[in-house]
Parts: sequence; structure tokens; C-alpha cells
Amino acid sequence: MTAAVPTSLLTDKYELTMLAAALRDGTAARRTTFEVFARRLPDGRRYGVVAGTGRLLEALGGFVFDEAALATVSEFLDPATLEFLADFRFGGDVDGYAEGELFFPGSPVLSVTGTFAECVLLETLALSILNHDCAVASAAARMVSAGGGRPMIEMGSRRTHEQAAVAAARSAWIAGFAGTSNLAAAHCYGIPALGTSAHAFTMLHTGDGPGSDEWERSAFRAQVAALGEDTTLLVDTYDVRRGVANAIAAAGTGLGAVRIDSGDLGVLARQVREQLDELGARATRIVVSGDLDEYAIAALRAEPVDTYGVGTSVVTGSGAPTAGMVYKLVDVEGVPVQKRSLHKESHGGRKAALRLARASGVITEEVVHPFGTPPPTTEPARELTVPLVRAGEVLNAPDLDAARSLVAAGLASLPWEGLALSRGEPAIPTRQVSR
Amino acid sequence: MTAAVPTSLLTDKYELTMLAAALRDGTAARRTTFEVFARRLPDGRRYGVVAGTGRLLEALGGFVFDEAALATVSEFLDPATLEFLADFRFGGDVDGYAEGELFFPGSPVLSVTGTFAECVLLETLALSILNHDCAVASAAARMVSAGGGRPMIEMGSRRTHEQAAVAAARSAWIAGFAGTSNLAAAHCYGIPALGTSAHAFTMLHTGDGPGSDEWERSAFRAQVAALGEDTTLLVDTYDVRRGVANAIAAAGTGLGAVRIDSGDLGVLARQVREQLDELGARATRIVVSGDLDEYAIAALRAEPVDTYGVGTSVVTGSGAPTAGMVYKLVDVEGVPVQKRSLHKESHGGRKAALRLARASGVITEEVVHPFGTPPPTTEPARELTVPLVRAGEVLNAPDLDAARSLVAAGLASLPWEGLALSRGEPAIPTRQVSR
Repeated sequence: MTAAVPTSLLTDKYELTMLAAALRDGTAARRTTFEVFARRLPDGRRYGVVAGTGRLLEALGGFVFDEAALATVSEFLDPATLEFLADFRFGGDVDGYAEGELFFPGSPVLSVTGTFAECVLLETLALSILNHDCAVASAAARMVSAGGGRPMIEMGSRRTHEQAAVAAARSAWIAGFAGTSNLAAAHCYGIPALGTSAHAFTMLHTGDGPGSDEWERSAFRAQVAALGEDTTLLVDTYDVRRGVANAIAAAGTGLGAVRIDSGDLGVLARQVREQLDELGARATRIVVSGDLDEYAIAALRAEPVDTYGVGTSVVTGSGAPTAGMVYKLVDVEGVPVQKRSLHKESHGGRKAALRLARASGVITEEVVHPFGTPPPTTEPARELTVPLVRAGEVLNAPDLDAARSLVAAGLASLPWEGLALSRGEPAIPTRQVSR
Repeated sequence: MTAAVPTSLLTDKYELTMLAAALRDGTAARRTTFEVFARRLPDGRRYGVVAGTGRLLEALGGFVFDEAALATVSEFLDPATLEFLADFRFGGDVDGYAEGELFFPGSPVLSVTGTFAECVLLETLALSILNHDCAVASAAARMVSAGGGRPMIEMGSRRTHEQAAVAAARSAWIAGFAGTSNLAAAHCYGIPALGTSAHAFTMLHTGDGPGSDEWERSAFRAQVAALGEDTTLLVDTYDVRRGVANAIAAAGTGLGAVRIDSGDLGVLARQVREQLDELGARATRIVVSGDLDEYAIAALRAEPVDTYGVGTSVVTGSGAPTAGMVYKLVDVEGVPVQKRSLHKESHGGRKAALRLARASGVITEEVVHPFGTPPPTTEPARELTVPLVRAGEVLNAPDLDAARSLVAAGLASLPWEGLALSRGEPAIPTRQVSR
């Protein structure tokens, strides 16, 4: 097992010292709302995808200060604060976008309402989960969309922190990936675990015969014997053309798939398709992998590729490893507050949002409005803000299938320029409605 | 507590299916060596920093297949493989660079020797930990070096996965940061936890008086009352000049520090220093934060900044969120093996490395040689490869202080161009010596 860290310590020290100061001067009990939003989308992206909400809600129940956690914070906190923490459970409300919704700059993705004391403690945990998971899901959705319906396998676990890998697999699944290489993600979330084979397995058979053809066939035969002919054989250890021939020689024409992991994947996919067809393996699929990102995936659209294996780029958010979400105090005792800052767009008050669309379903505008008072609209409008927690109780268990459907529906609702991979403006504008 | 995932499932499915195939054809028992190395450094970097080795060695003891793990893998594995896994413990050897060493392209950072079965299972876990931790430590070391001795606080937890944040704080500490905002890192590793205050705390006091000066003073007084005058007050919520005046009015001239989190930090630092001095607060320090990376840190060298708070850029590797480490089979039963691949530099055989230096201590070359047979050298040479695990037993407990000293010594040993922030070649060349 991995060392269990108390969830309540996945937190910055200053949240606890602010709590101590607020308890001492009596402001800790003030009723507040904090809002999670992104001021901008990264790198000219057109949309973001909300992910992590379910993980945050799951973590909430465990956000308590047990003896181990109290021992750590007792090094810098006073007895009154420690006493408060010993009894602490979040008892406030959380509202926000359902997991899987698209978001745009200024979308109030999550709002947390309760005493200052209980809201301030959740800042780091909420941001860590949402910044990471949204970054991965946002990149993954672009890849799914670039792939035009062909299945994608998330196989980037080795390129990110070992626990982040599990969350990344979950985010990629929500965004529409077909499965993951990560076994913990299968274990925790029931995501389909998929896999092929590594060059090491072929090279393990070095010397098993007079030459590399026989080494490779020996490895392929072993794999087929153990996993059946529907397996995927990795054909680029020595030479792709001979690898394909060896694969069919070992497995027969009923072989499930071959994988190519290096070289010019477009050229190789065409050559391999032709060779497989000539050999009579017309149903054998082609899996490609090797530093694929959304651009490389799109570039392979015209090629006979059946499945993409995507690693580094999906788990690191394809150039944007964090989603830029912030957690800002927007309301104190019913009074909207905001920091005075020239270039940072933030708007006071607890908020909710609507998304407007044309009759065709194509979305046109995100309308952010004071909580509880949506503006009148003539166009079709959908409420984006839903209650997630009431008085500390999580209202619904996370539903990954529902989140996955929401992403698919969201992508289908974008105006055509919203799916462009090139840098540009957000797919729809965000309008802030004041009270 | 966070949900405990069995460490053995932080693994890709294909490692288990390769194991099944190798058990079936009898190759699983072959004696192998796998090597972890980076083919190149990211983004024109001059050096990398090894981090994560200690975490990997700690994880090794927990890499077992308990009932929960077996239940998950039983969905796709045969009974013989499940039986093997039920009894599995890593019983091989691990050699590698000590945590905190610098590395260069081709440096054999880690090698794992044992049966194919036991070595293949560690691939994903080893790479996840090393790719993440080395990426953070490598970026952090550049920041430490750019800061020219001024202390850095790692405060990026909110910008990365909640568990990755803990490992990032550990890596930044190894690289020379003075501390972290992350309480779990203090809890797990004893790293100094540091912190200031957020804008929310000032804004919580909105309305506590006739105007924002009084609101701010009210917040500052509360913080000083709870945390003492050595605390750090955040002065840019409304207006920096008035914020500084309010801070000294509330705390007196013995105030520990003020923090500036927005605006042109260089200009503001100069103005604030002047103002503090005029107010008689000559010992009050200035902490700056807000999207700092190594370049911004270097640009502030001439300014009266006392401490840097660094977030996003350090935890995401400052543009290189993964270190590019791979785990390659290099030896089977004493025979060097390697994949045939035009552009991928990899060299067969189990290896170790020496680092050559001038008499002054400035390093000149990384020499990678067959394990056990270092080449003769005339220059001062240091052995980089040390035994870490023998027959499954970890030889030494991780020592973060030793790792931190190694980074400092490594940075001091670089030729002058090795510390340049600009893009360039690795600070020293790597020479591969064949047998």
C-alpha cells in the first residue's frame, strides 16, 4: 500500500494559520462563499472540460483531522484552533458544474458556501484536484475529437506521478478515451484496462534461434499462447516489415492487432495495412503510439490507423499541465467582495451560470449571474450550476458514465470553430450579469 | 485518509500480461537488467537532478499483490500467474545514482537486475516516480541557482495533483528550496512548512470599519495577534503603498515580512523597501510571489527581494513536467541487447558511470561503462553508481539531507556555462565506453 496521508494535510499551511487568526478575532464564523474558476483557458484553447468534481466530493468525507494530522499541525497552532480542528467536518454547501461539463473563462465551476473556517480549509485540496483533473480532461477531449471516433488508449502512467496517473486515467476516460493501461484506475474506477506488449518482451527472447526473425517469432508465439490470437503484437523491435510477417507467421491471419511505436507512423501504417491485407489478415487492426498529441493524431486521420495509444501528452495536459483554476472569496455575509487588481478579472458575489444555445443545439454564450436570480432569456438555456453538497452531505455519488456522456454532448454542442486545434478565442463568450 | 491503492497496481496492464506469457514459455526466470535513463534533457537544459530514488525504494517493500490487487488482475490472468503474484516480492538488485546527483543524457540513473519476471513488474512504478520527481527537482535546482542564495518557498500544491504535490515539495526541498507550504510534506518528510496569508483573509474583514484601510488593518491586527509580529502580511489586496503603511501601523516596525503577489514585482519591491525603511521597518523582509519561474527569479536579482514564493512553475517542471526517463531491457543472461532504432540512443549491457573533473573540482565528462569494469582515468573521477538494493533488501534508508547536499555540491561542480538559464547543450558530454 502507499503511505496513507491524512486528506486534511493535503493543504497549505496558511489555511490553518488564517483559521487560527480568524478564530481568535471572531471572524471565522462569518458566512462566506468561495468560487473556483479559471480566468483564461491555456494556450489559445477553445474550451475546457470539468473533471475531478467527483474525486473532490469523495475526498470531502475524509477531510478530518485525526491524531496524526493534529500532531503535525500542533507544531504551529494554538490549543483553541486544535480543538476546533479535532471536531471539524465540512458542514457547508457546494454548488457547481457537473463533472464532464465544458467550461470557459469565468465559468463558476465550483462554489463553496459556509463559515470562513470551513471554506478556507478546502482551498488547496479543491484546487489540486480540479487543476490537475481539468487539465488532463481538457487535453484528452481535444485528442478524442482529433481522432474522429477512433478509439484512444491512455498509456501515460509512466510519465506522471504514480497517483496522478490514476486520476489522469479517470479524466481521460471521462473525456472519451476507450480505456487505460493503468491497473489502479481499473481497480478504483472500473475503467477498462488495455495493453499490448513492450520491446523488452521481444528482446527477452534474444538468442532463441538462428536470427532475429526467430527471436521475434518466439516472443510472438509465447504471447499468443498466453493471451490468445486477439492480442496485439508489437512489430517494430527490429524491422517493421519483418515484424509484421513474423506476427502473422506466429499468430495466423486471425491476429487481433499489431502495434507500431516508432518511425513515421503515417507511412508505416499504410505499408503495414497493405502488407497485412496481402497476407490475408484483413481484420487485423493497427495500433499506433509514440509521442502522439492532438496534432499528431489529427495528422493521421487519413491513414489506416485503428487505435491510438497516447502517453505523455495526455497525462501532462499537452502543454498545459494545470488548468489555471483559482479559489477566490466572493461573498462575506451576503456582501460581494473582490480584490482590487487591474488585470485579473474577478467578480464579487455568489454566482451560477446558464448556457445559451440556438434551436439547433449549437451553444452561443455562457451567462454568469448572481446565484438564484437567472436573467430572463429568449434562447434555449440550460442551467449549468447544480447542487452538489448540502450541509456537508454529498447529494449524489459520482457517476463517470454520466460525466462521459456530458463531455460527448458538450463537444457536439460546440460551434464548428470550437473544435479547431489551432490557437484561438474561447468557443463562446462569457457574459457576466451583475445584480 | 486518501483511498489506499495497492502499490502493485500502480502499474500498466501489459507488464502483467508479459509476465503471464513469459511464465508460460519459461523465459520469466531469465536473468535480466533493465536500465532507467533519459535520452536527452528537456528544452535545452544543461543538467538534470536525480530525485525520487528514495520514494521508489520505500515503495518497493509494499510492492506485493494482496487480495484486493489479485482480485483486479484475476480478471485477465491465468491461475499460474496469479499464484506467482500471490508470493511475489522483489528479490533482485538495484544500482544507481544517489538521490540528488546531477544527471545528463545517457546517465544510467538506475539499473534493476533480477529475473525478467521481477524486473518487468517495476517498470511503471519506477518511471512514474523518477519522471515526476526528477522533473520537479531539475526545474527547482535552476530556480535555486537563479535566486543566488535567497530562500525559495515551494507553494505550488494547488497547481498539481494532491499527492504529486507532496512529492513535488520533497523534490524542491532536495533541490535546495527552504521549505514548502504543503503540510503533508511536513508530515511525511519533516520539510519545514512555511506560509503567509491569502487575500481572502483581508477581504473577510470587509466592512470592519469606515474604509478599506481599516478593513486591512483589522485583518493585519488579527493575524499579528494570532501569529506574532514575525508573521508575513500580504499587502497587495487593495493598494500596495497603503497596504505597507497599514501593515506597519498594525504590526509595528518589528514586522517579520510583507508579501507582494501581483504587479511588477521588481518595481514594487524597490518602492516597498524604500517605504519600509522610511517607516523604520528596516529589518522587515520582502517576500514576492506570483507566476515566478527561473527567468523571473533571475530578473529580480538586483531588486531588494528577500524570499521568493514559487508555485506553478516548480511543481510542473517549468515547461518540462516529465523527465523523459525510459526503462529499457539492456541485458539478458549476460548478453547485451538493444532495440534496433535509428534515432534512439540506447546501448546494451548493464552499466555504471564515473564523473571526471579537473583538479579544481569542475566536472568535465560523464563516462558510462560496462558494470564492474571502469576504464582507467588520469583525471580525478568519482563513481556515480552505488548499490541501492541487494537481493530485495534496501541497503540504506533515504536521506533527504544527504540528497540536498549532493545537489548543492553538484551545482557547485558545474562548469560556468552549465548554470546558464538559456537553452544550450548539456553542461558536460557523456561518453559511452564499450566492453
